[in-house]
Amino acid sequence: MVRVNENYLKIQASYLFTEIAHRVKAHQDANPGAKIIRLGIGDVTEPLAPAVIAALHRAVDDEAARETFRGYGPEQGYAFLREAVAKNDFQDRGIDVAADEVFISDGAKCDCGNIQELFDADVKIAVTDPVYPVYVDTNVMAGRTGTSSDGRYSGLVYLSCSAANGFVPSPADLPEPVDVVYLCYPNNPTGATATKEQLQAWVDWANAKKALILFDAAYEAFIRTPGIPHSIYECANARSCAIEFRSYSKTAGFTGIRCGYTVVPKGLVAWKADGTPVELRPFWTRRQTTKFNGCSYITQRGAEAVYSPEGAAQTKATIDFYLENARLVKDALSKLGYDVTGGTDSPYLWVNVKGDSWEFFDKLLKEANVVTTPGAGFGRAGEGFIRISAFNSRENVLEAIGRLSSVLA
Amino acid sequence: MVRVNENYLKIQASYLFTEIAHRVKAHQDANPGAKIIRLGIGDVTEPLAPAVIAALHRAVDDEAARETFRGYGPEQGYAFLREAVAKNDFQDRGIDVAADEVFISDGAKCDCGNIQELFDADVKIAVTDPVYPVYVDTNVMAGRTGTSSDGRYSGLVYLSCSAANGFVPSPADLPEPVDVVYLCYPNNPTGATATKEQLQAWVDWANAKKALILFDAAYEAFIRTPGIPHSIYECANARSCAIEFRSYSKTAGFTGIRCGYTVVPKGLVAWKADGTPVELRPFWTRRQTTKFNGCSYITQRGAEAVYSPEGAAQTKATIDFYLENARLVKDALSKLGYDVTGGTDSPYLWVNVKGDSWEFFDKLLKEANVVTTPGAGFGRAGEGFIRISAFNSRENVLEAIGRLSSVLA
Repeated sequence: MVRVNENYLKIQASYLFTEIAHRVKAHQDANPGAKIIRLGIGDVTEPLAPAVIAALHRAVDDEAARETFRGYGPEQGYAFLREAVAKNDFQDRGIDVAADEVFISDGAKCDCGNIQELFDADVKIAVTDPVYPVYVDTNVMAGRTGTSSDGRYSGLVYLSCSAANGFVPSPADLPEPVDVVYLCYPNNPTGATATKEQLQAWVDWANAKKALILFDAAYEAFIRTPGIPHSIYECANARSCAIEFRSYSKTAGFTGIRCGYTVVPKGLVAWKADGTPVELRPFWTRRQTTKFNGCSYITQRGAEAVYSPEGAAQTKATIDFYLENARLVKDALSKLGYDVTGGTDSPYLWVNVKGDSWEFFDKLLKEANVVTTPGAGFGRAGEGFIRISAFNSRENVLEAIGRLSSVLA
Repeated sequence: MVRVNENYLKIQASYLFTEIAHRVKAHQDANPGAKIIRLGIGDVTEPLAPAVIAALHRAVDDEAARETFRGYGPEQGYAFLREAVAKNDFQDRGIDVAADEVFISDGAKCDCGNIQELFDADVKIAVTDPVYPVYVDTNVMAGRTGTSSDGRYSGLVYLSCSAANGFVPSPADLPEPVDVVYLCYPNNPTGATATKEQLQAWVDWANAKKALILFDAAYEAFIRTPGIPHSIYECANARSCAIEFRSYSKTAGFTGIRCGYTVVPKGLVAWKADGTPVELRPFWTRRQTTKFNGCSYITQRGAEAVYSPEGAAQTKATIDFYLENARLVKDALSKLGYDVTGGTDSPYLWVNVKGDSWEFFDKLLKEANVVTTPGAGFGRAGEGFIRISAFNSRENVLEAIGRLSSVLA
């Protein structure tokens, strides 16, 4: 008798964005004429940069001729992209990351979900609350938790984020010792950013405790304020305690193209039960070579173009555009009397709705035809908030602001 | 202290194709002028079909304009592709598979590697020997085996394939009861195909034992002999005991483009410890929505074009070309006195080399500058064989035949 992995049965309800999609579809079906504006899931709306489009076309043409055809590529990604990443995202900023520490993938969601496979089933995990659900659900599926009660799983350690700690918890907030902590800055969902001092405190904690930081920097490209770290490796000694995830989804609009990468520094170790240190970089290499067959060659050529002078300027302009959207929404909601976190250095606004978040979500969906994301979907501490994303056309953002202003006035 | 998943340390040596790549590179470095012909890893060599190239270009252009831009797609794949798969690969052949039972992915390797996550850590697994290493290694990494000795892991059940059973073991060959069996036909690495009667015996066994068949049909497109099943679902009652994997890698030359799919029929169940049946299709949906973010939109449009009249004719012509390569190699090796399995209905030839397979691999590499795959890399029962793939230009295949004939004469 083939037995199922019963850990899957612990997962509560459906995946957040699936539930939202169902509610939106039901509303659209009931109101076929309604022009729904989506400020929910965080999908980008603007087309790819012309330099990226040109690179994609060239790569397609490479696949059309025997002489330039590329079949299986290295599972870790092509050298042309790994080198462009190491130089542009790290070395040119004075950060010590080498090309062979960069692992190209089909997206940060996959990497954030798969990374936990490298660790023992019994490691103690900490996540923030609210949290990007992938960090939690993948550990539930791997059996690292008990069942869920009131939005939290037993066996998992939660770091509550609130106005009281500026939505950036510190190691002092840990209620018990943990082995691994997932951190995400600029944060999804709150839009909060961490200062270098705040991140350094986590790095120092991890090195002292032989713990590991899984640092999700998917929204790094939105940072404009000087001094806010773009990478965990800007902190001293982070190479010995941190893995970093990056994504082209928001940086370059690759949500449908699929590309991201993970940095696993040489010398970063975890430990066997007997205390022997084991390097993690060969472990991730093993994981990727065994269970992944490389990111599409065409996609990787597109990602490479993000680093060309034209590609960099064009993608920056698109992010500036989204950041201006965020500023407009933040101004409007602030004027309506709402406390808003994020919205600068981040595409997300975290809005204190002073009430039930799914009810507020439903109200905005039904009365304003605007889709947001209910904070409760990100954890118990997300209750009372909604997340609004700045990914949309200026026209739609202005229209949404008008509708929200009339519904919430 | 963050502890590693020590199961990773059980995996023997490096991944087969990584080891081959290292040896080939060492040989090339030592002999810079050598013109090496690769009949090893099984990567395709011919360019994509013109219809696919055109579809890829159109999809890139979709991403260049706001009106046609596609961001996050459904994790299970776009309806346009799922429906094309269900119709063309199954329904038009009289096989009962619906579009919502088809899950599009970035390749069969990933799916074959990830599927074991759905099952309990204690399920007993059977694989053939020789075997595609992904089936084994992913279960080792998940802790379903003990350590390895002489090429086999304790806790895993091996079905030896040899000339004695025509390289197609039957349920009667199982030395002990198992819960899950991986089957692959046309087989990688042996090139053997299974008859409908042989597959029906496995289906009947699985239904009787509440076991599950994981059926890898990545080489289905190479079947030309009438009567050989293209899908496990051609067998009666297979929907209640089998998951099937397909790939565009060999079908349409997508090794660098990355696309495949998995079929999980409605009603297919596994069981909880208490005997309660649980449907697997929602489990796979959960796995994919949580840990995967969909296959690239551009890639999916390319895969869709494989089913257009032009795309189907063009991809079939390329497979016919590879099959003719296989026939030529098989004829030559047979004339040299070697017993060869496969090479019809398959791109692979499984050659009895009457000696050590890594030595034979090294001999062909060094004396003929021809890369093959040593059978020992696929398991203990692969010792004494090499795998030759038919993926190359006609010119290279004829050149390789000439070199092999002179080295082996």
